[in-house]
Amino acid sequence: MTTENPTACLLIIGNEVLSGRTRDANLQYIATRLGELGIPMREARVIPDVPETIIGAVNECRARFTHVFTTGGIGPTHDDITSECVARAFGVPWEVHEETRALMAADYARRDPPVEFNAARMRMATLPRGAVPIRCDETSAPGFSMGNVHVMAGVPRIMRAMFEALAPSLEGGRPVLSRAVHADGVYEGTIAEGLSAIQARHPSLDLGSYPYYRKGAPGGGVALVAKGTDGAEVEAAAREMAALLREAGGEAREGEPQQG
Amino acid sequence: MTTENPTACLLIIGNEVLSGRTRDANLQYIATRLGELGIPMREARVIPDVPETIIGAVNECRARFTHVFTTGGIGPTHDDITSECVARAFGVPWEVHEETRALMAADYARRDPPVEFNAARMRMATLPRGAVPIRCDETSAPGFSMGNVHVMAGVPRIMRAMFEALAPSLEGGRPVLSRAVHADGVYEGTIAEGLSAIQARHPSLDLGSYPYYRKGAPGGGVALVAKGTDGAEVEAAAREMAALLREAGGEAREGEPQQG
Repeated sequence: MTTENPTACLLIIGNEVLSGRTRDANLQYIATRLGELGIPMREARVIPDVPETIIGAVNECRARFTHVFTTGGIGPTHDDITSECVARAFGVPWEVHEETRALMAADYARRDPPVEFNAARMRMATLPRGAVPIRCDETSAPGFSMGNVHVMAGVPRIMRAMFEALAPSLEGGRPVLSRAVHADGVYEGTIAEGLSAIQARHPSLDLGSYPYYRKGAPGGGVALVAKGTDGAEVEAAAREMAALLREAGGEAREGEPQQG
Repeated sequence: MTTENPTACLLIIGNEVLSGRTRDANLQYIATRLGELGIPMREARVIPDVPETIIGAVNECRARFTHVFTTGGIGPTHDDITSECVARAFGVPWEVHEETRALMAADYARRDPPVEFNAARMRMATLPRGAVPIRCDETSAPGFSMGNVHVMAGVPRIMRAMFEALAPSLEGGRPVLSRAVHADGVYEGTIAEGLSAIQARHPSLDLGSYPYYRKGAPGGGVALVAKGTDGAEVEAAAREMAALLREAGGEAREGEPQQG
């Protein structure tokens, strides 16, 4: 898909995703929301809690993409090293952010029983110099933006709150529009050639073909999806894709197939 | 975690994951199985259906990791370009694999009604020269291994069959063992310092701390996980982590918390 939209990369930071303990629940949410904002996600990486790896990935990706989003590694424990690694990637001090410290101290004092603002929790008030906190109602420990790098929590509920707090400040592009058609009983291999021809007629769109499976009758089929920023062209491609499915003997239906 | 085990990287190839249309369902399965085989996954990337990106990632990762696994992009449509990109990454011709062509032809002829072995489907019988097919009962179109790069389907049912067909031929290391303890009502920030001390005593282990949330009472708490290849050391760390949770006033329970 060729657009002049800004681009995004996601770094999912955490051994627990790479070991299989935790199934990532953030990529799909962020990808969908960024598409709506016209900032398509071009790459995502899952990387371990290893300083050199985090620093290298942050520096490589912030140079290649308009925005880099990170999830994970901003809690109080020894394996929460995202914030200090971002400071090292930017070559700036990692220091207590006074306004954040005061907000967190007030929050902890309000709790019943009060929560001790110990050294581990103070790490969450410590930010790269120049970072802009991302605050939300879910926690007093903030995410932050450092240049084009946006650092968010890994816990999905908190990540979403931080993303939505940040979203209005992101300069987006034209939203990525999507139209899907599908037909039971049609094989990918049957429509592949025709789909190539539609793609060739609409080079600015991103056409995809996704087989689906269902037990019993009606069994599976294929879903065809057109994505792009030009609504009229997306509509035209969707009509051509529906005609292609009918030519292959299928009953073309709008939208994605029902799961089952 | 320091081990002399072989390492793995996963490349998830497909615009549909980056756009949010499809939630990846393969990473967690592959990560878990590779841990059992003693081939810990060290990185995963989600990359688009763009030749230069795929070729670059394959070449970077096959040099850095013992094994590279890929999912997606080996079907018959225009956006299925993984196989030819792997050929280009290795600098070898991409050519019809005769044994595979014959097996697929026999399969298609057996279907009722027979399936046409058209040019699009012939792409699935076309492999990098020197590739070793990965066959499974789910489909006659194979995955393949090319050197240390193992190319599998993106459809989870087929990917799993291909992975399990491949697994016996992978030279593994010592399995990665895991022990978890958890306690309701304990905050991460309270046990962070003690957990750091346990990590310092067991530098060969990978200790993780994961808050969890539940609505109502009992509410959330924290889960602590020790991973490593030395069973006695993993056990020792688990005992120390349980003691830490009790010191923090929690009732330490074995294993991961129930979802809810």
